[in-house]
Amino acid sequence: MTIKSAVMACLFATLSASFGVVAAPTMEELLAASKPSDWRSVDPQNTLYMELATGRVVIELAPEFAPRHTAAVRDLVRAKYFDGLVINRVQDNFVVQWGDPEGKKSLRPKALAGEFMVAATGVPFIALPESDVYAPQTGFASGLPAARDRPDGKVWLTHCYGMVGVARDDDANSGDGTRIYVVIGHAPRQLDRNVTMLGRVLKGMELLSVLPRGAGARGYHESSDQWTPIREIRVAADLPLELRTHLEVLRTDTEMFASLVESRRNRPDVWFKARAGRIDVCNIPIPVRATRPE
Amino acid sequence: MTIKSAVMACLFATLSASFGVVAAPTMEELLAASKPSDWRSVDPQNTLYMELATGRVVIELAPEFAPRHTAAVRDLVRAKYFDGLVINRVQDNFVVQWGDPEGKKSLRPKALAGEFMVAATGVPFIALPESDVYAPQTGFASGLPAARDRPDGKVWLTHCYGMVGVARDDDANSGDGTRIYVVIGHAPRQLDRNVTMLGRVLKGMELLSVLPRGAGARGYHESSDQWTPIREIRVAADLPLELRTHLEVLRTDTEMFASLVESRRNRPDVWFKARAGRIDVCNIPIPVRATRPE
Repeated sequence: MTIKSAVMACLFATLSASFGVVAAPTMEELLAASKPSDWRSVDPQNTLYMELATGRVVIELAPEFAPRHTAAVRDLVRAKYFDGLVINRVQDNFVVQWGDPEGKKSLRPKALAGEFMVAATGVPFIALPESDVYAPQTGFASGLPAARDRPDGKVWLTHCYGMVGVARDDDANSGDGTRIYVVIGHAPRQLDRNVTMLGRVLKGMELLSVLPRGAGARGYHESSDQWTPIREIRVAADLPLELRTHLEVLRTDTEMFASLVESRRNRPDVWFKARAGRIDVCNIPIPVRATRPE
Repeated sequence: MTIKSAVMACLFATLSASFGVVAAPTMEELLAASKPSDWRSVDPQNTLYMELATGRVVIELAPEFAPRHTAAVRDLVRAKYFDGLVINRVQDNFVVQWGDPEGKKSLRPKALAGEFMVAATGVPFIALPESDVYAPQTGFASGLPAARDRPDGKVWLTHCYGMVGVARDDDANSGDGTRIYVVIGHAPRQLDRNVTMLGRVLKGMELLSVLPRGAGARGYHESSDQWTPIREIRVAADLPLELRTHLEVLRTDTEMFASLVESRRNRPDVWFKARAGRIDVCNIPIPVRATRPE
């Protein structure tokens, strides 16, 4: 938070507490007033499209946090590994997960050393002032929700709604990128620092979150006719421009974003009678917008 | 937490930290070893059945927190007010909500004074030792996730997944029980102390959480053919025994529950490499079990 935005936040809080007067802008008003430089483009080399019968899920990869896993998953995608595979796990209030439950694919990529955390030194980290239940500090890094222990310790991505991770077996280094999950419920923060996070769903969460829940243990479907087929997964860069989904993501290292966080911390809408005054990192939206019609 | 469970928790944490040795039981093991007295029955007068084409959603009311609203909603149910109405709002990662968007019902119940909080004095409160982002203290009251400011201050129910609330207009006292919502996403704790909480969904969340999201503002469906019809809502006590869903809920004021919380705080499963050591009140399951087959 810059001095200016801190002063603004303090002023709003004081006004609000003293007089019940709220002049702060809503998130919608802030976004409407945003400048082009408040937004960032998305690297098509780091963007995956998962095509379902119901539409496209757009995933942004986070190579800064998982260079080996994002590269391996990109390789799998380019080998068309996921084409014709299925979403075979949908656990209510937890995750959807896809993979190759029938062992159809002959490709057996090698397991990767876990990339659960990275060294915090030198990683730009936009820290929230709030305490957090699970971590000494939370905030944003590389535009994603993150946590760290100390500025010279470790930083890791947090399991907020829409975050994407690589499933693994009991061995920390057993993940190979062939099974991938997306958080569809209350942030399962107990998973933080236990799995390699791949990135975040930018668009199409509602195609995943509505899938029928699996009746088996841990949300696995009990029969294959309940699986959701994946037509294909592609790297955006490999598609012609006209077939891509053109998106921009709000930057998290700007005064605009600090104002957005403050607007969510103390919701200015007249509907709110008790303003929270605080916010959980997983309750802060990171807006995404289309830059041209599809 | 009793002295015994605190000592046990400390012992497990010490063992776990020092040697990587984990002997603590999993939640499943704890539940398998539970005694009948660890469970409580559910008052059929405080239980609602919402019947959808896909099945039954069971809601337990919380009259301790909202005596006026739970009584008013029970009256609406007994007047068959909700029969033939619809779920007309499904906002991804937020809520589903039902009501009478077409104004079909002639009954216009009067607005009720908000019941956002109750006096904490005398309310048994099982406090978690953890800090919380949104409240000075969180824990459980009347078997539900709750928060309070001080032991002699106020206590309120928290907006965890599956919690049920009464929608209102901007006026704090404008809710009348005709529009009801259920949390289907990451806990929107900013709503705490702003709405009257009615209770919790005990069974059938997966019937609500899979509903197609509304494409309109705030998740409202844009046309009536996207609404989900409600066949009827009934008070369990008004149905013959053989048509009821017989459930028990794990008590939250027992050593068993304290052990369950500890088991979720430091997950003993070998899969976990970094144990959280802490837990968010909305990540603690409150188990429900069937006492006879349906």
